[in-house]
Amino acid sequence: MATYIIGIDIGGTSTKWGIVSQTGELLYKSFLETSGYKNFKSYVSAVSEQIKKYITENKITDISGIGIGAPNGNYHTGNIEYAANLDQKGILPVSKLFEEEFNLPVKLTNDANAAAIGEKVFGNAKQMQNFVLLTLGTGLGSGIFVEGKLLYGKTGMAGELGHITVNPDGRQCSCGKIGCLEEYVSAKGIVQNVNYILTLPENENLKSPLKDMKQENITPKLISELAGKNDPVAYKTLEYTGKILGIAIADIYSIFSPEAVFLAGGISKAEQPFMKNVKKYAEKYSLKIHKNNIKILKSGLENSPVGILGAAALIING
Amino acid sequence: MATYIIGIDIGGTSTKWGIVSQTGELLYKSFLETSGYKNFKSYVSAVSEQIKKYITENKITDISGIGIGAPNGNYHTGNIEYAANLDQKGILPVSKLFEEEFNLPVKLTNDANAAAIGEKVFGNAKQMQNFVLLTLGTGLGSGIFVEGKLLYGKTGMAGELGHITVNPDGRQCSCGKIGCLEEYVSAKGIVQNVNYILTLPENENLKSPLKDMKQENITPKLISELAGKNDPVAYKTLEYTGKILGIAIADIYSIFSPEAVFLAGGISKAEQPFMKNVKKYAEKYSLKIHKNNIKILKSGLENSPVGILGAAALIING
Repeated sequence: MATYIIGIDIGGTSTKWGIVSQTGELLYKSFLETSGYKNFKSYVSAVSEQIKKYITENKITDISGIGIGAPNGNYHTGNIEYAANLDQKGILPVSKLFEEEFNLPVKLTNDANAAAIGEKVFGNAKQMQNFVLLTLGTGLGSGIFVEGKLLYGKTGMAGELGHITVNPDGRQCSCGKIGCLEEYVSAKGIVQNVNYILTLPENENLKSPLKDMKQENITPKLISELAGKNDPVAYKTLEYTGKILGIAIADIYSIFSPEAVFLAGGISKAEQPFMKNVKKYAEKYSLKIHKNNIKILKSGLENSPVGILGAAALIING
Repeated sequence: MATYIIGIDIGGTSTKWGIVSQTGELLYKSFLETSGYKNFKSYVSAVSEQIKKYITENKITDISGIGIGAPNGNYHTGNIEYAANLDQKGILPVSKLFEEEFNLPVKLTNDANAAAIGEKVFGNAKQMQNFVLLTLGTGLGSGIFVEGKLLYGKTGMAGELGHITVNPDGRQCSCGKIGCLEEYVSAKGIVQNVNYILTLPENENLKSPLKDMKQENITPKLISELAGKNDPVAYKTLEYTGKILGIAIADIYSIFSPEAVFLAGGISKAEQPFMKNVKKYAEKYSLKIHKNNIKILKSGLENSPVGILGAAALIING
């Protein structure tokens, strides 16, 4: 087995890449802008050039493959398919283009799946065969392991727990559907939850700086900080968000009966009562067989460049 | 490979069993009461005695194993665990007891899983690696195939789609939780849906024989028949039930990206607008990648003793 893997984490703003050992040590990392290229091929060339420069200068020849995590990355086809937050639209043959550049095996998946594979190969799920990882960022992503393998389904696009319906008459999701989980539990969801809490008649007389702020100035960080200072609106917002996530985790247990659910991303670190309510409602809405056996754990890669490590892990467990 | 398999379908009222060939032909079937025994061991002895009598008289020696489908049957442990509708409570070591009787390999799973395995081995899912089967009976059961294998999870009790939460403030489920899917989409659910439709102010002036009936006299069959005659309450009840099932199927696609969802059981044969609405809302609440690709199919074992065949199929694909 070759010593190194190239891990590439494609995001809307920047593309991070690194050289990773088989045991998850990061030899080197760097990044460049994702946008501003003539076309997708010239973007791939620019990324490849930067990587090739490093591996040539440092005489690294012992590379087993390239793993890539990207929004809407399809494992089966090797294409990015209709990613909303990339400059280049439509179907982008990312695996094929990198294969041509490096003549190495390339594997692609979406960013949440890559995070789950990273958890399995390098993180806290090494011994687990069945687990779910939820990334609570701008949206809500998920990666699901069943019997030691990531769940891809027929299309390569399974595992979209952020888009299960929590309210059929609820909020418009950026995916085009109505009432998706990620419109309630994510950075964008939690900001909308403030507004919801403020519209409830029972909360009319609560005092909070959030009442006079424009929605675009409210951040999950601010909500969390205010909740830590017992701001009643922020507190109720985190209660509400935690309840919805807790019920979703109970459903995950009914469906998958996993060994654990991992939470990653900024929102997962919110002040109490967030996690208190997540746990309370995960228990309350779980089947008898799961009660007192629900494990909600932190990602083991919290302080690491999880995008690069997860992408590299694809080459080990893809 | 031996020629025959014993398939046993344990239900609350009766236990059906049969001798099944490797290709799904039923050589013989019979049944006996499930209840009325001193203890679980004496029940297993009675079932075994009847089977042994038949196989001895007919000189059948070429048997590869015994497959059993039972409520709350756990594939991993071989036990029935806390089944609500059996006389005998608690943990029942059904696989162990049948092994002792026959000295043959025994495999156990729950009835919905057995139906899904039957679909895979003998039915319409032979060529499929990823599919979901929903049994719409008294409750809502499900069996989920991922990459050619039934989804069991850590506990052996995964795949309980009937107990995902559709309304956290909704109906009390017999499982102890609130707002489970099966309280809305099942024989018991559809009868409650009549009541819900009748409580909506907009329906106050509708004319229907259902308005004056006691809930215990309303059956899914009656609702379906009345809908076929354009009874407005029955019609709206099937619309409502279909909508909830449709949204659940959209969620199944977001989570599993299966090749198809199979519907089995009495409710799946309800008159229109049931399936019309199932399809409409499955499309409406599905992600872009699944739109116009959602397949909702009938079980291929509809006119067969699916419980016995599914149980037997466990020995072939367990």
